[in-house]
Amino acid sequence: MKRISILRAIAMCAVILITFAASRSDDKAVPLFGIKIPPGYRDWKLISVAHEAGNLNDLRAVLGNDVAIKAYREGKIPFPDGTIIARLAWSYVPSEENDKVFGRSQSFVAGSATNVQFMVKDSRKYAATGGWGFAQFKDGKPDADAALLKTCFPCHEPNKARDYVFTHYAPTP
Amino acid sequence: MKRISILRAIAMCAVILITFAASRSDDKAVPLFGIKIPPGYRDWKLISVAHEAGNLNDLRAVLGNDVAIKAYREGKIPFPDGTIIARLAWSYVPSEENDKVFGRSQSFVAGSATNVQFMVKDSRKYAATGGWGFAQFKDGKPDADAALLKTCFPCHEPNKARDYVFTHYAPTP
Repeated sequence: MKRISILRAIAMCAVILITFAASRSDDKAVPLFGIKIPPGYRDWKLISVAHEAGNLNDLRAVLGNDVAIKAYREGKIPFPDGTIIARLAWSYVPSEENDKVFGRSQSFVAGSATNVQFMVKDSRKYAATGGWGFAQFKDGKPDADAALLKTCFPCHEPNKARDYVFTHYAPTP
Repeated sequence: MKRISILRAIAMCAVILITFAASRSDDKAVPLFGIKIPPGYRDWKLISVAHEAGNLNDLRAVLGNDVAIKAYREGKIPFPDGTIIARLAWSYVPSEENDKVFGRSQSFVAGSATNVQFMVKDSRKYAATGGWGFAQFKDGKPDADAALLKTCFPCHEPNKARDYVFTHYAPTP
Protein backbone atom coordinates (compact mmCIF):
# COMPACT_ATOMS: atom_id res chain seq x y z
CA MET A 1 0.00 0.00 0.00
CA LYS A 2 2.73 2.38 1.09
CA ARG A 3 4.72 1.66 -2.10
CA ILE A 4 1.68 2.41 -4.27
CA SER A 5 1.21 5.74 -2.49
CA ILE A 6 4.82 6.74 -3.13
CA LEU A 7 4.49 5.80 -6.80
CA ARG A 8 1.23 7.75 -6.99
CA ALA A 9 2.91 10.78 -5.38
CA ILE A 10 5.80 10.57 -7.86
CA ALA A 11 3.34 10.31 -10.75
CA MET A 12 1.40 13.33 -9.49
CA CYS A 13 4.61 15.33 -9.15
CA ALA A 14 5.55 14.41 -12.69
CA VAL A 15 2.18 15.61 -13.99
CA ILE A 16 2.50 18.86 -12.05
CA LEU A 17 6.06 19.45 -13.29
CA ILE A 18 5.17 18.68 -16.90
CA THR A 19 2.14 21.00 -16.74
CA PHE A 20 4.29 23.70 -15.19
CA ALA A 21 7.01 23.28 -17.82
CA ALA A 22 4.41 23.38 -20.62
CA SER A 23 2.79 26.53 -19.28
CA ARG A 24 6.20 28.13 -18.87
CA SER A 25 7.24 27.40 -22.44
CA ASP A 26 3.86 28.60 -23.73
CA ASP A 27 4.58 31.88 -22.00
CA LYS A 28 7.70 32.21 -24.06
CA ALA A 29 6.09 32.39 -27.51
CA VAL A 30 5.71 35.68 -29.38
CA PRO A 31 2.17 36.79 -30.21
CA LEU A 32 0.73 36.56 -33.73
CA PHE A 33 3.17 33.87 -34.96
CA GLY A 34 3.45 31.78 -31.78
CA ILE A 35 7.19 31.25 -32.19
CA LYS A 36 9.46 30.26 -29.28
CA ILE A 37 13.25 30.48 -29.13
CA PRO A 38 14.54 27.45 -31.06
CA PRO A 39 16.72 25.43 -28.66
CA GLY A 40 20.43 25.50 -29.46
CA TYR A 41 20.19 28.28 -32.05
CA ARG A 42 23.49 29.79 -30.77
CA ASP A 43 25.20 26.64 -32.10
CA TRP A 44 23.87 27.08 -35.65
CA LYS A 45 26.12 27.67 -38.62
CA LEU A 46 27.00 31.10 -39.92
CA ILE A 47 25.19 32.62 -42.90
CA SER A 48 26.66 36.12 -42.76
CA VAL A 49 27.54 39.17 -40.68
CA ALA A 50 26.49 42.81 -40.94
CA HIS A 51 26.65 46.23 -39.35
CA GLU A 52 23.56 48.36 -39.13
CA ALA A 53 24.50 51.95 -38.38
CA GLY A 54 21.93 54.67 -37.67
CA ASN A 55 19.55 54.19 -34.78
CA LEU A 56 20.14 50.45 -34.56
CA ASN A 57 23.94 50.80 -34.42
CA ASP A 58 24.63 47.12 -33.99
CA LEU A 59 26.82 44.30 -35.18
CA ARG A 60 24.91 41.22 -36.23
CA ALA A 61 25.37 37.61 -37.12
CA VAL A 62 22.86 35.66 -39.15
CA LEU A 63 22.82 31.95 -38.39
CA GLY A 64 20.74 29.16 -39.89
CA ASN A 65 19.49 25.76 -38.83
CA ASP A 66 20.57 22.82 -41.00
CA VAL A 67 17.61 23.23 -43.38
CA ALA A 68 18.48 26.91 -43.88
CA ILE A 69 22.20 26.28 -44.42
CA LYS A 70 21.54 23.52 -46.96
CA ALA A 71 19.13 25.74 -48.90
CA TYR A 72 21.53 28.68 -48.83
CA ARG A 73 24.49 26.61 -50.02
CA GLU A 74 22.44 25.05 -52.80
CA GLY A 75 20.94 28.43 -53.75
CA LYS A 76 17.47 26.98 -53.24
CA ILE A 77 14.67 29.54 -53.51
CA PRO A 78 12.04 29.40 -52.02
CA PHE A 79 13.42 28.11 -48.75
CA PRO A 80 11.83 24.79 -47.75
CA ASP A 81 9.49 24.43 -44.79
CA GLY A 82 11.48 23.93 -41.62
CA THR A 83 13.97 26.67 -42.48
CA ILE A 84 14.79 28.89 -39.53
CA ILE A 85 17.01 31.93 -39.88
CA ALA A 86 18.31 33.59 -36.71
CA ARG A 87 19.53 37.16 -36.54
CA LEU A 88 21.57 37.90 -33.41
CA ALA A 89 22.58 41.49 -32.70
CA TRP A 90 24.94 43.19 -30.29
CA SER A 91 25.62 46.83 -29.59
CA TYR A 92 28.41 48.24 -31.77
CA VAL A 93 31.20 49.25 -29.44
CA PRO A 94 34.76 50.48 -30.05
CA SER A 95 37.42 48.18 -28.64
CA GLU A 96 40.10 50.13 -26.79
CA GLU A 97 41.96 46.87 -26.24
CA ASN A 98 42.20 46.14 -29.97
CA ASP A 99 42.80 49.77 -30.96
CA LYS A 100 45.84 49.83 -28.68
CA VAL A 101 47.37 46.98 -30.69
CA PHE A 102 46.45 48.47 -34.06
CA GLY A 103 47.77 51.84 -32.89
CA ARG A 104 44.66 53.64 -34.17
CA SER A 105 40.89 53.79 -33.62
CA GLN A 106 39.52 51.22 -36.00
CA SER A 107 38.15 48.24 -34.10
CA PHE A 108 34.46 47.75 -33.34
CA VAL A 109 33.25 44.67 -31.53
CA ALA A 110 30.10 43.05 -30.17
CA GLY A 111 28.99 44.65 -26.90
CA SER A 112 25.89 43.58 -25.02
CA ALA A 113 23.21 41.58 -26.82
CA THR A 114 20.35 43.74 -28.08
CA ASN A 115 17.81 41.27 -29.42
CA VAL A 116 17.44 38.07 -31.40
CA GLN A 117 15.05 37.66 -34.31
CA PHE A 118 13.88 34.55 -36.11
CA MET A 119 12.22 33.87 -39.45
CA VAL A 120 10.50 30.49 -39.48
CA LYS A 121 9.34 28.98 -42.76
CA ASP A 122 6.00 27.17 -42.69
CA SER A 123 4.21 27.79 -45.96
CA ARG A 124 0.82 26.62 -44.65
CA LYS A 125 0.85 28.07 -41.14
CA TYR A 126 2.20 31.44 -42.27
CA ALA A 127 0.58 31.58 -45.73
CA ALA A 128 -0.64 35.13 -45.13
CA THR A 129 2.93 36.42 -44.66
CA GLY A 130 4.75 34.78 -47.54
CA GLY A 131 5.17 31.51 -45.65
CA TRP A 132 7.28 33.12 -42.93
CA GLY A 133 6.63 33.60 -39.24
CA PHE A 134 8.54 36.38 -37.49
CA ALA A 135 9.70 36.63 -33.89
CA GLN A 136 11.82 38.87 -31.70
CA PHE A 137 13.29 38.09 -28.28
CA LYS A 138 15.05 40.36 -25.84
CA ASP A 139 16.94 38.93 -22.85
CA GLY A 140 15.45 35.57 -23.77
CA LYS A 141 11.90 36.90 -23.49
CA PRO A 142 9.51 37.26 -26.42
CA ASP A 143 8.67 40.69 -27.68
CA ALA A 144 4.96 40.84 -26.87
CA ASP A 145 4.32 43.81 -29.14
CA ALA A 146 1.98 42.40 -31.80
CA ALA A 147 1.90 45.76 -33.62
CA LEU A 148 5.69 45.61 -34.01
CA LEU A 149 5.58 42.04 -35.35
CA LYS A 150 3.00 43.16 -37.90
CA THR A 151 5.63 45.47 -39.40
CA CYS A 152 8.02 42.57 -40.24
CA PHE A 153 6.38 41.20 -43.35
CA PRO A 154 5.61 44.52 -45.08
CA CYS A 155 9.33 45.33 -44.81
CA HIS A 156 10.37 41.95 -46.22
CA GLU A 157 7.67 41.93 -48.91
CA PRO A 158 9.59 43.87 -51.60
CA ASN A 159 12.14 41.05 -51.61
CA LYS A 160 9.71 38.43 -52.92
CA ALA A 161 12.14 37.27 -55.62
CA ARG A 162 14.48 36.04 -52.89
CA ASP A 163 11.67 34.52 -50.83
CA TYR A 164 11.51 37.62 -48.59
CA VAL A 165 15.01 37.03 -47.18
CA PHE A 166 17.51 39.88 -47.31
CA THR A 167 20.68 38.24 -46.03
CA HIS A 168 22.96 36.72 -48.66
CA TYR A 169 25.29 33.87 -47.80
CA ALA A 170 28.77 35.25 -47.05
CA PRO A 171 31.11 33.60 -49.54
CA THR A 172 33.68 31.09 -48.32
CA PRO A 173 37.02 31.54 -50.01
CA MET B 1 50.73 -14.19 -63.45
CA LYS B 2 48.40 -11.77 -65.20
CA ARG B 3 46.40 -11.33 -61.98
CA ILE B 4 49.55 -10.47 -60.03
CA SER B 5 50.52 -7.85 -62.65
CA ILE B 6 47.12 -6.19 -62.38
CA LEU B 7 47.35 -6.15 -58.59
CA ARG B 8 50.85 -4.71 -58.85
CA ALA B 9 49.65 -2.01 -61.24
CA ILE B 10 46.80 -1.11 -58.86
CA ALA B 11 49.23 -0.96 -55.94
CA MET B 12 51.57 1.29 -57.91
CA CYS B 13 48.70 3.60 -58.85
CA ALA B 14 47.69 3.79 -55.19
CA VAL B 15 51.23 4.76 -54.19
CA ILE B 16 51.37 7.41 -56.92
CA LEU B 17 47.97 8.83 -55.95
CA ILE B 18 48.79 8.90 -52.24
CA THR B 19 52.13 10.60 -52.92
CA PHE B 20 50.39 13.13 -55.17
CA ALA B 21 47.70 13.82 -52.57
CA ALA B 22 50.32 14.19 -49.82
CA SER B 23 52.40 16.63 -51.84
CA ARG B 24 49.26 18.59 -52.73
CA SER B 25 48.18 18.90 -49.11
CA ASP B 26 51.72 19.76 -48.03
CA ASP B 27 51.59 22.58 -50.55
CA LYS B 28 48.62 23.96 -48.68
CA ALA B 29 50.33 24.57 -45.34
CA VAL B 30 51.57 27.99 -44.31
CA PRO B 31 55.31 28.35 -43.66
CA LEU B 32 56.72 28.63 -40.14
CA PHE B 33 53.75 27.01 -38.37
CA GLY B 34 52.87 24.34 -40.98
CA ILE B 35 49.12 24.87 -40.56
CA LYS B 36 46.59 23.80 -43.22
CA ILE B 37 42.97 24.90 -43.53
CA PRO B 38 41.03 22.83 -40.97
CA PRO B 39 38.35 20.89 -42.85
CA GLY B 40 34.79 22.06 -42.19
CA TYR B 41 35.77 25.26 -40.37
CA ARG B 42 32.93 27.16 -42.08
CA ASP B 43 30.53 24.97 -40.07
CA TRP B 44 32.05 25.90 -36.71
CA LYS B 45 30.11 27.75 -34.03
CA LEU B 46 30.14 31.49 -33.65
CA ILE B 47 32.36 33.19 -31.07
CA SER B 48 31.78 36.80 -32.09
CA VAL B 49 31.63 39.38 -34.87
CA ALA B 50 33.55 42.60 -35.48
CA HIS B 51 34.20 45.45 -37.86
CA GLU B 52 37.71 46.63 -38.51
CA ALA B 53 37.66 50.07 -40.12
CA GLY B 54 40.81 51.80 -41.39
CA ASN B 55 42.90 50.07 -44.02
CA LEU B 56 41.41 46.65 -43.33
CA ASN B 57 37.81 47.88 -43.68
CA ASP B 58 36.22 44.49 -43.22
CA LEU B 59 33.44 42.67 -41.44
CA ARG B 60 34.56 39.57 -39.61
CA ALA B 61 33.23 36.52 -37.88
CA VAL B 62 35.24 34.56 -35.36
CA LEU B 63 34.33 30.87 -35.19
CA GLY B 64 35.70 28.11 -32.99
CA ASN B 65 36.06 24.37 -33.16
CA ASP B 66 34.36 22.40 -30.37
CA VAL B 67 37.39 22.64 -28.08
CA ALA B 68 37.48 26.42 -28.52
CA ILE B 69 33.73 26.88 -27.95
CA LYS B 70 33.76 24.75 -24.79
CA ALA B 71 36.71 26.70 -23.36
CA TYR B 72 35.10 30.05 -24.23
CA ARG B 73 31.76 29.11 -22.67
CA GLU B 74 33.46 27.82 -19.53
CA GLY B 75 35.76 30.85 -19.39
CA LYS B 76 38.75 28.52 -19.43
CA ILE B 77 42.12 30.30 -19.69
CA PRO B 78 44.59 29.15 -21.01
CA PHE B 79 42.82 27.49 -23.92
CA PRO B 80 43.52 23.74 -24.04
CA ASP B 81 45.61 22.11 -26.74
CA GLY B 82 43.45 21.34 -29.74
CA THR B 83 41.75 24.74 -29.67
CA ILE B 84 41.40 26.30 -33.10
CA ILE B 85 40.01 29.80 -33.57
CA ALA B 86 39.07 30.90 -37.09
CA ARG B 87 38.77 34.50 -38.16
CA LEU B 88 36.86 34.96 -41.43
CA ALA B 89 36.76 38.40 -43.03
CA TRP B 90 34.84 39.98 -45.86
CA SER B 91 35.04 43.41 -47.44
CA TYR B 92 32.76 45.94 -45.75
CA VAL B 93 30.22 47.01 -48.36
CA PRO B 94 27.12 49.18 -48.16
CA SER B 95 23.93 47.34 -49.04
CA GLU B 96 21.75 49.39 -51.39
CA GLU B 97 19.11 46.67 -51.19
CA ASN B 98 18.85 46.94 -47.40
CA ASP B 99 19.17 50.73 -47.35
CA LYS B 100 16.17 50.99 -49.67
CA VAL B 101 14.05 49.17 -47.07
CA PHE B 102 15.41 51.16 -44.14
CA GLY B 103 14.92 54.37 -46.13
CA ARG B 104 18.43 55.57 -45.26
CA SER B 105 22.10 54.66 -45.71
CA GLN B 106 22.86 52.49 -42.72
CA SER B 107 23.39 48.91 -43.79
CA PHE B 108 26.83 47.35 -44.30
CA VAL B 109 27.17 43.73 -45.27
CA ALA B 110 29.78 41.10 -46.09
CA GLY B 111 31.15 41.53 -49.61
CA SER B 112 33.84 39.31 -51.08
CA ALA B 113 35.99 37.21 -48.77
CA THR B 114 39.33 38.84 -47.97
CA ASN B 115 41.23 36.22 -46.00
CA VAL B 116 40.85 33.60 -43.28
CA GLN B 117 43.15 33.33 -40.30
CA PHE B 118 43.58 30.56 -37.76
CA MET B 119 45.11 30.32 -34.31
CA VAL B 120 45.95 26.74 -33.41
CA LYS B 121 46.81 25.84 -29.81
CA ASP B 122 49.58 23.31 -29.33
CA SER B 123 51.58 24.24 -26.27
CA ARG B 124 54.54 21.98 -27.16
CA LYS B 125 54.74 22.49 -30.90
CA TYR B 126 54.33 26.26 -30.67
CA ALA B 127 56.02 26.83 -27.29
CA ALA B 128 58.07 29.73 -28.70
CA THR B 129 54.91 31.69 -29.59
CA GLY B 130 52.83 31.30 -26.45
CA GLY B 131 51.55 27.87 -27.49
CA TRP B 132 49.83 29.26 -30.59
CA GLY B 133 50.44 28.65 -34.26
CA PHE B 134 49.24 31.29 -36.70
CA ALA B 135 48.07 30.95 -40.29
CA GLN B 136 46.49 33.04 -43.03
CA PHE B 137 44.79 31.84 -46.21
CA LYS B 138 43.56 33.81 -49.20
CA ASP B 139 41.30 32.21 -51.79
CA GLY B 140 41.90 28.91 -50.05
CA LYS B 141 45.67 29.22 -50.50
CA PRO B 142 48.19 29.67 -47.70
CA ASP B 143 49.90 33.00 -47.27
CA ALA B 144 53.48 32.03 -47.95
CA ASP B 145 54.91 35.21 -46.47
CA ALA B 146 56.90 33.95 -43.46
CA ALA B 147 57.86 37.52 -42.53
CA LEU B 148 54.16 38.41 -42.22
CA LEU B 149 53.45 35.36 -40.06
CA LYS B 150 56.30 36.38 -37.78
CA THR B 151 54.36 39.56 -36.95
CA CYS B 152 51.37 37.64 -35.52
CA PHE B 153 52.69 36.70 -32.12
CA PRO B 154 54.32 40.05 -31.23
CA CYS B 155 50.90 41.66 -31.80
CA HIS B 156 49.11 39.10 -29.64
CA GLU B 157 51.81 39.06 -26.96
CA PRO B 158 50.50 42.00 -24.88
CA ASN B 159 47.34 39.99 -24.25
CA LYS B 160 49.09 37.26 -22.27
CA ALA B 161 46.54 37.42 -19.44
CA ARG B 162 43.88 36.18 -21.86
CA ASP B 163 46.18 33.57 -23.40
CA TYR B 164 47.02 35.90 -26.31
CA VAL B 165 43.44 35.86 -27.65
CA PHE B 166 41.72 39.18 -28.32
CA THR B 167 38.21 38.12 -29.26
CA HIS B 168 35.71 37.90 -26.41
CA TYR B 169 32.72 35.57 -26.62
CA ALA B 170 29.67 37.56 -27.78
CA PRO B 171 27.07 37.17 -25.05
CA THR B 172 23.94 35.16 -25.70
CA PRO B 173 20.86 36.81 -24.27
